[in-house]
Amino acid sequence: MAHQILQGKKGIIFGALDERSIAWKTAIAAVEAGAQIVLTNAPIALRMGKINELSKLCNDAPVIPADATSMEDLEKLFTQSMEALGGKVDFVLHSIGMSPNVRKNIDYTNTNYDNFHKTLDISAMSLHRVLQTAMKLDALNEWASVIALSYIAAQRAFPGYNDMADAKALLESITRSFGYQYGFAKKVRVNTVSQSPTITTAGSGVSGFDSFFHYADKMSPLGNATSEDCASYCISLFSDYTRMVTMQNLFHDGGFSFTGVSHLVIEEINKLAAESANS
Amino acid sequence: MAHQILQGKKGIIFGALDERSIAWKTAIAAVEAGAQIVLTNAPIALRMGKINELSKLCNDAPVIPADATSMEDLEKLFTQSMEALGGKVDFVLHSIGMSPNVRKNIDYTNTNYDNFHKTLDISAMSLHRVLQTAMKLDALNEWASVIALSYIAAQRAFPGYNDMADAKALLESITRSFGYQYGFAKKVRVNTVSQSPTITTAGSGVSGFDSFFHYADKMSPLGNATSEDCASYCISLFSDYTRMVTMQNLFHDGGFSFTGVSHLVIEEINKLAAESANS
Amino acid sequence: MAHQILQGKKGIIFGALDERSIAWKTAIAAVEAGAQIVLTNAPIALRMGKINELSKLCNDAPVIPADATSMEDLEKLFTQSMEALGGKVDFVLHSIGMSPNVRKNIDYTNTNYDNFHKTLDISAMSLHRVLQTAMKLDALNEWASVIALSYIAAQRAFPGYNDMADAKALLESITRSFGYQYGFAKKVRVNTVSQSPTITTAGSGVSGFDSFFHYADKMSPLGNATSEDCASYCISLFSDYTRMVTMQNLFHDGGFSFTGVSHLVIEEINKLAAESANS
Amino acid sequence: MAHQILQGKKGIIFGALDERSIAWKTAIAAVEAGAQIVLTNAPIALRMGKINELSKLCNDAPVIPADATSMEDLEKLFTQSMEALGGKVDFVLHSIGMSPNVRKNIDYTNTNYDNFHKTLDISAMSLHRVLQTAMKLDALNEWASVIALSYIAAQRAFPGYNDMADAKALLESITRSFGYQYGFAKKVRVNTVSQSPTITTAGSGVSGFDSFFHYADKMSPLGNATSEDCASYCISLFSDYTRMVTMQNLFHDGGFSFTGVSHLVIEEINKLAAESANS
Repeated sequence: MAHQILQGKKGIIFGALDERSIAWKTAIAAVEAGAQIVLTNAPIALRMGKINELSKLCNDAPVIPADATSMEDLEKLFTQSMEALGGKVDFVLHSIGMSPNVRKNIDYTNTNYDNFHKTLDISAMSLHRVLQTAMKLDALNEWASVIALSYIAAQRAFPGYNDMADAKALLESITRSFGYQYGFAKKVRVNTVSQSPTITTAGSGVSGFDSFFHYADKMSPLGNATSEDCASYCISLFSDYTRMVTMQNLFHDGGFSFTGVSHLVIEEINKLAAESANS
Repeated sequence: MAHQILQGKKGIIFGALDERSIAWKTAIAAVEAGAQIVLTNAPIALRMGKINELSKLCNDAPVIPADATSMEDLEKLFTQSMEALGGKVDFVLHSIGMSPNVRKNIDYTNTNYDNFHKTLDISAMSLHRVLQTAMKLDALNEWASVIALSYIAAQRAFPGYNDMADAKALLESITRSFGYQYGFAKKVRVNTVSQSPTITTAGSGVSGFDSFFHYADKMSPLGNATSEDCASYCISLFSDYTRMVTMQNLFHDGGFSFTGVSHLVIEEINKLAAESANS
Repeated sequence: MAHQILQGKKGIIFGALDERSIAWKTAIAAVEAGAQIVLTNAPIALRMGKINELSKLCNDAPVIPADATSMEDLEKLFTQSMEALGGKVDFVLHSIGMSPNVRKNIDYTNTNYDNFHKTLDISAMSLHRVLQTAMKLDALNEWASVIALSYIAAQRAFPGYNDMADAKALLESITRSFGYQYGFAKKVRVNTVSQSPTITTAGSGVSGFDSFFHYADKMSPLGNATSEDCASYCISLFSDYTRMVTMQNLFHDGGFSFTGVSHLVIEEINKLAAESANS
Repeated sequence: MAHQILQGKKGIIFGALDERSIAWKTAIAAVEAGAQIVLTNAPIALRMGKINELSKLCNDAPVIPADATSMEDLEKLFTQSMEALGGKVDFVLHSIGMSPNVRKNIDYTNTNYDNFHKTLDISAMSLHRVLQTAMKLDALNEWASVIALSYIAAQRAFPGYNDMADAKALLESITRSFGYQYGFAKKVRVNTVSQSPTITTAGSGVSGFDSFFHYADKMSPLGNATSEDCASYCISLFSDYTRMVTMQNLFHDGGFSFTGVSHLVIEEINKLAAESANS
């Protein structure tokens, strides 16, 4: 879809690691829609990833490293972005999440609290840091749109998700709290998109991901949303078509969030029950 | 915004009464975005309204009368619409609501149950009737998008809203229930947009509307969303940018729904308290 | 538990059909907790059921027939109940629900709208009728507690639940709308209890109930709540321990409502996947 | 109310500072209901408060100091409590919250992130620490009930509440996440009670508290719930009447949470508008 609905808009995309990332797809879709963008990620992720490849696909978008837990880095990022883009910023994608507890396979009931703080800092408070820096530098235009990616584990228990569930709940709360402030101050809107489980390099790290992906797909009337779908949705939320939407958590999940159980899941369970009865 | 994001799409717009209606603005915006539409309303509303004026503004869109509580009328509407549009339908706007209890100033605690049934039938079950008819006639394309307009009284008590609150709760439930069915069956998505209080001919009928409009505006970080804003939002939800969103109630209200209280409201109340103390 | 926490309180229990009914258990638990009660049900249900047996277990509680869709019957019920109980009423249990569409196996997407209206009238508007009658007759004491039984299909799609899902959404909305009015007017509280799937004569009517019961049990950290559990919970909500709780939908479901997926369900699905792979 | 509904039960009460504390009232109510309790608070709070006075009112309940952010302290607390109480614990009240940002009047949009981490650690992660310690020591009986006090700022923006809003959102998420784990593991239930604004020593610290208290009272059909009311409600949630309730956030607020606006608030605003017009 190349309707130029972001023509003249300038944005910053956090978190594109490789071509499976939602941020990667969103960067490409934003440029296709007419936007000018800056790409950013943590220095270590930039070294591991293929960001220069993405930059080329995005009209040689500048790549500016920034650790989203460092106020100094974020200040540099916004200052340099405004220079590179030639003006204030109209949209931001926050696609940042990492849990040392998940990485190290530490159970939720045996958590390490230093790790837990890091999970919250990287995955949720980083959004506050981004917004506070932008506000301090007056780096966002009126009606700018900030989106952070979330997950329904913020609302309901998904055991494999560990302390990332709590981080997403915090992220959504910061969205409301800062959205209130930035809305009154500058007409800036802040929302989260709560996306289907997605086959990304980050997503695959969660234990039991494959079964869960399958389950979610069978529970969703439209099936799981892909990362391309998510990119399209983000473009609509960056555009002027959605100006009055703020402080919301927007489920983008093929209907999973409001499906209690699907006939497909019940059928699978019945099949199993029948087999047990027969054996 | 004329990005042609509905190019090639065909839609039906229910409920355009006059130029203050959300449906009126949505019809115009849809045509500007490249869609072909049919306009419909109850026969009596068509006589009172200025639908022919709207039709002219919409490339002479056909006007097909239909009482949304009559299955016969709805069947005709879909059959004739497909003929007029030259194919199946891609989007539907349901902007239908009426409460005889509200019209006659009958209190919620002294309701008339025949009226209450009519409120539910016209304002909520009509959505079920539209969807059931469309499904029976296989009148919607895959990925078609159906939107019904709702209000936050579905979630929280707003005393002036009377039995329309219950009708909106029912409307949102039908959205989920039928959205589940139509999603699995045909990839059709069904959502409600929960809009700010809006100065329309219908909205103004609710008692104490002006004070409430003012209150909602002061409670909303971005202010109340207008009917033009709502039209733009609906266009984005009809488009292919939002394909995987279904069974949702989407607040389009400048942040009202997630604001507990605003400093502006507290200031007004403080002013009043100070004046009482001084007098 | 016989702590006499309802000592001196007078109540009306709607909907006890037989010993599997939640209303049946609640009646017994209320009497054990020191309350005086009146039993009521639709005339036809009284003929089919074993209400006299229950009456005996409840200190010969009076049985007063009332069709909850008839204002005349409800007026008689409250008038006669106050006479029989010797004063105004302190608590009411509304356990009433019936869908002709479910009974006749009519699909949700092929609904009969007369049936649908009946489902809403019997299962949801009856609560409004009960409250409006009580208010008109000033039949409830201050701080009286009214509970209606609901189900999570009011929030999320459960395909087997058909139009009862919409009826429960309407029921919960009436709870909020009337709870607002009765709270300000008389300090009366009105809430719904959203109960686990329960093996009752009514519950078993829903298609695929057994598989679903099993699924819900595996999804609930504490397992499904039984009808005895529900009765105990209702007693606490009738008591003075919970005076400031109103307009709420209270999940009583062993944690089902906030569990996205459980490891037990994932294990079952994995088992099935493994078997498919091996065969 | 002295119905002995906690007879034979043993509990730990965190956070009783003085006679205005909800924890203070809950301690007294628990003992009146037949429970045996241990009182605990941070060492510094114990020095400032009047805990020994409370201990006397609670049958000389042992007072065990514990910093709820120290795993060592919590381990001692549970070990010594089980000794003092002569067995495992049946209920816990977590009434702990503190924000250095609030104390120092640091705006939310100019936050100090070290403070923010402390707010989260003290006010939310402390619940995880309590639960993890209890689980490790197997210190809770089956069907034990853990309650943490929350506030509706977890769901909606209340500007005066600052980063405590985010802490409460995190607290409620931990309640769900750990409630899932402890429910499956040991049938332990974990819930939050979301209480009306309450005139406590802690509550009064929030800026503009008085106006807001007044506003909330006028918005609540039953008025604001008091700390005594909250204590009664907690007792019901510790008791066996509510065994199957877990992972919930339970609003105890006189109906505030589901009131969109009240006629009383609209009247106040109208009065102000009329005065402006006249002057």
